Amino acid sequence: MTDLTLFIANKNYSSWSLRPWMALTGCGIPFDEKLVRFDFSAGNPAIKAISPSGQVPVLQHGAVKVWESVAIIEYVAELFPEAGLWPTDSRDRALARSISLEMACGFRALRNACPMNMRRPVKAIALPDGVMDNVRRIETIWKECLDRSGGPFLFKSFSAADAMFAPVVNRFTTFNLTQDRTALAYMETIRRHPAWIAWVNAALAEPWVIPEDELPEEVEDAYRQVASIAGN
Amino acid sequence: MTDLTLFIANKNYSSWSLRPWMALTGCGIPFDEKLVRFDFSAGNPAIKAISPSGQVPVLQHGAVKVWESVAIIEYVAELFPEAGLWPTDSRDRALARSISLEMACGFRALRNACPMNMRRPVKAIALPDGVMDNVRRIETIWKECLDRSGGPFLFKSFSAADAMFAPVVNRFTTFNLTQDRTALAYMETIRRHPAWIAWVNAALAEPWVIPEDELPEEVEDAYRQVASIAGN
Repeated sequence: MTDLTLFIANKNYSSWSLRPWMALTGCGIPFDEKLVRFDFSAGNPAIKAISPSGQVPVLQHGAVKVWESVAIIEYVAELFPEAGLWPTDSRDRALARSISLEMACGFRALRNACPMNMRRPVKAIALPDGVMDNVRRIETIWKECLDRSGGPFLFKSFSAADAMFAPVVNRFTTFNLTQDRTALAYMETIRRHPAWIAWVNAALAEPWVIPEDELPEEVEDAYRQVASIAGN
Repeated sequence: MTDLTLFIANKNYSSWSLRPWMALTGCGIPFDEKLVRFDFSAGNPAIKAISPSGQVPVLQHGAVKVWESVAIIEYVAELFPEAGLWPTDSRDRALARSISLEMACGFRALRNACPMNMRRPVKAIALPDGVMDNVRRIETIWKECLDRSGGPFLFKSFSAADAMFAPVVNRFTTFNLTQDRTALAYMETIRRHPAWIAWVNAALAEPWVIPEDELPEEVEDAYRQVASIAGN
């Protein structure tokens, strides 16, 4: 038991859960996790019972509840100032927060068209307007940060900013969205990170298909895939 | 001249500009402002020239550029730790960040259907799905914070959290979205704040109509209204 409990949803689908989970795990913060499964058909009563906003992730620390990924990261950064959730250099920190907030608030076209799904096979789709603009902007952010940091992470070492962009690594991969060499190398760095590997392995072991989080034309494939994984 | 320059867009329309502008102004932070007008028809080249994300607001501090409202607030809060941008109590601060981020990342139905527009006369509209859910959630946030703080602000004194919700005060007013007494009293508090009054007066003096930021059926009204203001 630790003082901190992070409530998350399905690891296969919940991009918002992955962000603070990976930030805390990657920075060595001790915490307990509780997985509260999505249940859209019933209006997600279990999530609403624990979350003021009705959404995960939520961090509980004694009587304090904190929600929204970036608010959770700020709270834990104050509790563990030496853990490096944000870069120590003030200018780097300003840039890390700017791009993390740009991710939290924006990139709607990409997020809507290409949901995070750890189980989804690689398959390109016809992309709605705006998705490739989002992809290009993310490529630019990564390139500018990696040029400054020298790589392999966006800042001098792994930080919350890498965690905020982690779900994009899955989207870029399974929807085959980038051929940019800098982006591909950075994605490989994230895919080799122990926190990422642990999350993905847990996601792939989940037996649950959430139709609301699959592309409509791929729901049946998802059920077949889960059945085949369960059968192994 | 101060060290800080905040680039904003039209005060009549730019809800994202209002947030950090009101946070900094309300907390007594000295800064210069530069207004860069929206020009959607041309792709907003002036804004793209100054902003890494192609959007305002942007804060410039020497060679450092910070964008996204909450990142700007965090940066200035570190520069001026005594200014009270965030509450001093750690639990209050966690709550202030949670609700500020919930505002920054969410409430899409409300934001899409009911754009901030300082000049718009009060007029209810038929509301798309989801708007009233957003309204109820904001009423709940305000009530819970005001119960904790004792009012009149969301925390013990004016903070960035009030500024993050300021555009909602205009939306709730002009679209007549709430009859909740606690909400109405809080809205009156914000409307009497000197920073709000200064912003609104400047907004009402702007002669520019941005069709992309008006409801389609109200664009002609907006042109008539601006002509009538200009003629006074």
